[in-house]
Amino acid sequence: MDKDDIVRKIKDHKKQPNLRFRLKTEVEKFSNKLFLCLFDMETPVEPSLLELEAQFTSLAELACWDPENSCKELWGQYLEKLPVILEKLNLDAEAIADCDPASLSLEEVYMAYPGFYAIAIYRLAHELYNFGFPLVPRLMTEYAHSKTGVDINPGARIGNSFFIDHATGVVIGETAVIRDHVKIYQGVTLGALYVAKNLEKTKRHPTIENNVTIYANATILGGNTIIGENSIIGGNAWITSSVPPNSTVFHTPEIKIKTLPNVP
Amino acid sequence: MDKDDIVRKIKDHKKQPNLRFRLKTEVEKFSNKLFLCLFDMETPVEPSLLELEAQFTSLAELACWDPENSCKELWGQYLEKLPVILEKLNLDAEAIADCDPASLSLEEVYMAYPGFYAIAIYRLAHELYNFGFPLVPRLMTEYAHSKTGVDINPGARIGNSFFIDHATGVVIGETAVIRDHVKIYQGVTLGALYVAKNLEKTKRHPTIENNVTIYANATILGGNTIIGENSIIGGNAWITSSVPPNSTVFHTPEIKIKTLPNVP
Amino acid sequence: MDKDDIVRKIKDHKKQPNLRFRLKTEVEKFSNKLFLCLFDMETPVEPSLLELEAQFTSLAELACWDPENSCKELWGQYLEKLPVILEKLNLDAEAIADCDPASLSLEEVYMAYPGFYAIAIYRLAHELYNFGFPLVPRLMTEYAHSKTGVDINPGARIGNSFFIDHATGVVIGETAVIRDHVKIYQGVTLGALYVAKNLEKTKRHPTIENNVTIYANATILGGNTIIGENSIIGGNAWITSSVPPNSTVFHTPEIKIKTLPNVP
Amino acid sequence: MDKDDIVRKIKDHKKQPNLRFRLKTEVEKFSNKLFLCLFDMETPVEPSLLELEAQFTSLAELACWDPENSCKELWGQYLEKLPVILEKLNLDAEAIADCDPASLSLEEVYMAYPGFYAIAIYRLAHELYNFGFPLVPRLMTEYAHSKTGVDINPGARIGNSFFIDHATGVVIGETAVIRDHVKIYQGVTLGALYVAKNLEKTKRHPTIENNVTIYANATILGGNTIIGENSIIGGNAWITSSVPPNSTVFHTPEIKIKTLPNVP
Amino acid sequence: MDKDDIVRKIKDHKKQPNLRFRLKTEVEKFSNKLFLCLFDMETPVEPSLLELEAQFTSLAELACWDPENSCKELWGQYLEKLPVILEKLNLDAEAIADCDPASLSLEEVYMAYPGFYAIAIYRLAHELYNFGFPLVPRLMTEYAHSKTGVDINPGARIGNSFFIDHATGVVIGETAVIRDHVKIYQGVTLGALYVAKNLEKTKRHPTIENNVTIYANATILGGNTIIGENSIIGGNAWITSSVPPNSTVFHTPEIKIKTLPNVP
Amino acid sequence: MDKDDIVRKIKDHKKQPNLRFRLKTEVEKFSNKLFLCLFDMETPVEPSLLELEAQFTSLAELACWDPENSCKELWGQYLEKLPVILEKLNLDAEAIADCDPASLSLEEVYMAYPGFYAIAIYRLAHELYNFGFPLVPRLMTEYAHSKTGVDINPGARIGNSFFIDHATGVVIGETAVIRDHVKIYQGVTLGALYVAKNLEKTKRHPTIENNVTIYANATILGGNTIIGENSIIGGNAWITSSVPPNSTVFHTPEIKIKTLPNVP
Repeated sequence: MDKDDIVRKIKDHKKQPNLRFRLKTEVEKFSNKLFLCLFDMETPVEPSLLELEAQFTSLAELACWDPENSCKELWGQYLEKLPVILEKLNLDAEAIADCDPASLSLEEVYMAYPGFYAIAIYRLAHELYNFGFPLVPRLMTEYAHSKTGVDINPGARIGNSFFIDHATGVVIGETAVIRDHVKIYQGVTLGALYVAKNLEKTKRHPTIENNVTIYANATILGGNTIIGENSIIGGNAWITSSVPPNSTVFHTPEIKIKTLPNVP
Repeated sequence: MDKDDIVRKIKDHKKQPNLRFRLKTEVEKFSNKLFLCLFDMETPVEPSLLELEAQFTSLAELACWDPENSCKELWGQYLEKLPVILEKLNLDAEAIADCDPASLSLEEVYMAYPGFYAIAIYRLAHELYNFGFPLVPRLMTEYAHSKTGVDINPGARIGNSFFIDHATGVVIGETAVIRDHVKIYQGVTLGALYVAKNLEKTKRHPTIENNVTIYANATILGGNTIIGENSIIGGNAWITSSVPPNSTVFHTPEIKIKTLPNVP
Repeated sequence: MDKDDIVRKIKDHKKQPNLRFRLKTEVEKFSNKLFLCLFDMETPVEPSLLELEAQFTSLAELACWDPENSCKELWGQYLEKLPVILEKLNLDAEAIADCDPASLSLEEVYMAYPGFYAIAIYRLAHELYNFGFPLVPRLMTEYAHSKTGVDINPGARIGNSFFIDHATGVVIGETAVIRDHVKIYQGVTLGALYVAKNLEKTKRHPTIENNVTIYANATILGGNTIIGENSIIGGNAWITSSVPPNSTVFHTPEIKIKTLPNVP
Repeated sequence: MDKDDIVRKIKDHKKQPNLRFRLKTEVEKFSNKLFLCLFDMETPVEPSLLELEAQFTSLAELACWDPENSCKELWGQYLEKLPVILEKLNLDAEAIADCDPASLSLEEVYMAYPGFYAIAIYRLAHELYNFGFPLVPRLMTEYAHSKTGVDINPGARIGNSFFIDHATGVVIGETAVIRDHVKIYQGVTLGALYVAKNLEKTKRHPTIENNVTIYANATILGGNTIIGENSIIGGNAWITSSVPPNSTVFHTPEIKIKTLPNVP
Repeated sequence: MDKDDIVRKIKDHKKQPNLRFRLKTEVEKFSNKLFLCLFDMETPVEPSLLELEAQFTSLAELACWDPENSCKELWGQYLEKLPVILEKLNLDAEAIADCDPASLSLEEVYMAYPGFYAIAIYRLAHELYNFGFPLVPRLMTEYAHSKTGVDINPGARIGNSFFIDHATGVVIGETAVIRDHVKIYQGVTLGALYVAKNLEKTKRHPTIENNVTIYANATILGGNTIIGENSIIGGNAWITSSVPPNSTVFHTPEIKIKTLPNVP
Repeated sequence: MDKDDIVRKIKDHKKQPNLRFRLKTEVEKFSNKLFLCLFDMETPVEPSLLELEAQFTSLAELACWDPENSCKELWGQYLEKLPVILEKLNLDAEAIADCDPASLSLEEVYMAYPGFYAIAIYRLAHELYNFGFPLVPRLMTEYAHSKTGVDINPGARIGNSFFIDHATGVVIGETAVIRDHVKIYQGVTLGALYVAKNLEKTKRHPTIENNVTIYANATILGGNTIIGENSIIGGNAWITSSVPPNSTVFHTPEIKIKTLPNVP
């Protein structure tokens, strides 16, 4: 097989005519700019918003999005949501600062908590998801995923004062619902019990009520699973059915300890 | 201790004369270029292949690789494998699109699934591993690891239509064998039972037969462990011996729930 | 609500006047430069140290740090620690090369082991933490976290010849103590039993004695929990109280296997 | 003199509190973006205009410009001029393509003629000069000067279908007036006869009427000097008073030629 | 006129569908890479040639060049010329080092003489001009022009051991012919007497025979003008007809000196 | 001739083992940093000086400079000169602002006058030239040459309050001497009468006394040529012997004007 054959074969197998990875890079720039516009004191608000509008228009073009209303109107609507999103994110940051004994200052929370970054990008992507913007919100949260290890589907619904610590390995599915003042730790999955293509319209992921805390590596599965308010889910717990309010769930695995007199 | 002493001491402790981190940066460029050459519609195939050949030659030089055949011949051989790898990766992408109820389009799979990126870089690295190329394939999959949280050793053997979702925390060891149509979720480890230096030639990691699904955070250990075809391994399962074909493995930990009348 | 209102509202909600994300970028450059200065053969030591001193001064300014001694003196003190840190990191690298049957060469360890990178940045940040440098050491380890999935708080105390493999999901808390020759695998948490803001001065994370090995996804919690020397903690183990020296802890969950005659 | 003294002295001598060289970099980006927005087929118009508006706002802030009308209104007014400027520049390009026997295509004119780039940036800067925008238009033409060797003051007034070839060393002063269909070559100066600070409001530079051609390295000086229409000014000519219409000016220096029978 | 009108108008005026400024950036990369491949000791030859081949293919695509022979064959032919070009350029460098009393070393000539850079890019572009490659050779020499102030048309024919010093303002036209061992200084023009579009096939620029030296700012015009061998042309000379061999041409302008007893 | 032959031939012709173009890039960074450190209000002095020291050390290594005193001592000596250089440059800037009717503010002079940039880099390079630093000062002024079109040899000696306007094409030779309050315009050459290699220790370029003004494109040649104080040299003047103090030199070329009744 000579080189021209190889080139031709590769060209033949490149099947997706709309597959432009530039969209990915552009989404990353847009996400970072949005984040800095809302939080960084050295990024002036007004010119940033104009740049973001320009990027928004480009994204629509690259994603082949042909919305019913003009891009400009949609951007106007998105803009109106930004102050509300910012207000919510400030509540999230305060929740983290209030809860974590290791945090020194609010600055640390905004800059050094991957959980905060992941929530911020999720909240900013969720509104675009609600507009029906194809691909872009998913690429936004996936970008946050690759930076923080937290995989939140932009379709999830998350209330106020949400707290994630240590972050790596958290998975929150598309139809999960999380109410206010919920705290979760690394490795927590809010997932589906079964995975099948025809379930796409069904609620497949759990509901977490107000004031619930879920410790590290707990797994909660199923669209009908509801964790009642004020409950505490212990680390490593494996839960596939609902838990009443005000409950504490202990994971108490049997472990065996065998102690030798002297091992190297 | 004055400054010159410190400089001298640091120089003395820099022990590895071949330690050039430029190799790492070059591997990252090579991996990204390969990936875009195969999938991105805005990256033309022919000039990219020439650039890749140039990078391949540089990598061989930086990795101090002195192969029996000339670099050019090896590149020729690698080139011949690219259409086959691409074909396999298209099958992987279709497997993801067919299984995940949250995926909207094939474009989304190629761009937004970290699992797909990890498999792609693994498949591209695996052929170089077969050529005996030192370090480079390992740096390729480690690069994918740092971006996706999926750690696949380039020595692993993986069949067609492989599916990974959510990705973070997946570990697939050097001597693992995975057949066709296998699906795995976040946090799954296919690891070794024991770790000791003198085991390097031994099969230390499990074999997964056709059509097996392994849900999140399951751990499967040992070189003699075989998961028989058509089996389903439940989330959080801990498996250190073989499972017959057509099995369903349930992880059923005892948990205790204590519900209080009124907690804050 | 018109555009000027939105701009004004966003400005009003940007509450933290010291929030300059440039600090984050600068910390990343500083961390990378330090790492290359110590290990990369193509990065000359002397000019790099001068650059690092310049960056150190800038970081102090950006972090609004007003130390009692001058920045120059503190840099001098930090410099004196670098040869010792480098010596320790070479021991860490040897520990990895000696233990992992998949590692081919020391070069591979330095370049391709995320665990090594995470330990290196931790050790470099820990000394700055001891100086009372605000935010910067935390941003350093958080940077390593985002690249490797390993979250080590710069306050933790870690002995010689420390080994981490596969890395993703490891969490080591602020008051954890790890002695010499300890090995840990992916997904291991050394965490707190309870999380509450007023515990900030308390020892909240476990102590791991010499020669302990902790396999993947084990969770060890509590400030009074001590894992005695020469012990082996099995994968997925969940430990909230002390384990005597020379022990082996087996996690033996009950699993149920149901095998069907013929499933698709 | 110790190091702290030196630092203090340098700080004392940095006298201009508004001296921010970032303005220069931003002007360069703005100029390039404007140019590509108008001519490059791969730069989409609409998002570019939004980015330019953002940059315009930033420039006003960096240049400490506090205009009577809001920035947005001024941008609106500038925007209205862009189609006219573009139309003029297309005429300039056609004039070049029509005159130069070495030009192959209009593409070549737009991409490879430094004279075209210099005219384009001049025309774009001139409108900002008319708005009273401080510093920015001057930095724009100075940027073009550093790239092309053509120094056109943004205050000069230049008619339609202007042609510059080879470009290096052309100088066109602040109060020069150039009518339509004028052609000039490398090294031509349209300068002042005398230079003194108190002349700033006076017309100090010449007027060039329609259809004049000025060959290489000619120098034309003085605010009252008018080159009448349809005239041709020969290369190296030195002119300090007016020339009637329809004239040809020959520079006929005496040169002496001494020929030797045989010199090495 | 509202914003949409402006956008539409600008789009209407963007008339050249093939105008892609990316070609310009790509030509700059190609030129720099070629230059470093031939001279820089830290740029390895073999991988650079492969990269250059890739860039050559891209340039052909961007310039819409559809050559009779395949791109690969033409690259092969160009490659064969490179050692000869390199040999010639080494002669040029030696000529400079031998002539200029201010040059310290050959390294200085290669790195710090803009004249050398301009000749190098000209020689590399000239061969592509001979292949009929559209636009690219012109963009190469124009790139060198913008960096050095030396404007050599790629069509000019220049012999061995060519020397340019100080460089700024040199112009060498498309049909100029320069034999061996010629030296020229800043501001020298080898131009056309008349400029008219229909002269494109005519020899419009002078011929300079062996061993001629042309001092600063001299102007030599016309396609029939021949400067005979071993001649010296004085600075500022203005020459429009041939000069016999072994001549010295003195420019002896009359100047008037008026000395005042005391001027401020 | 096959590809390997070509590669081998190119390698054979790469004759200068010390030819590392990285030196050039590093010099450019060093020059820009120095300039910003002295003038830009957003570049803090102290950390910049440390970075510059690091770069200085690197430059010495790349230029293979082995000075008698240690690099650190030489840097210390250079540092002591910086406040004096800065003071001189502020005088230069004031001279420009005082003389040019087109300048609006001192900020404009510092940012938009290529002549100022060229003088600044010359003054900074001249001290390194005095230290015997090989190549680096020459690369510094050549860098300024490529950005501004002003070619000042670092060996020239230039007094206080020096003014250059429009800049393109100015050449000032290695042994030129310029006293205080001198003003020169575009295209002025202070050059040598004859050029021969054995003249390298001789004074080959003119001396310009206090308060002299030299208008555009004048050429002054020869090591014994002295322009007496308070003199004015008219544009395009060609001077090869001394001019007494308080003189005005008029260039009065004969030109012929032929006016036609009606030319198109």
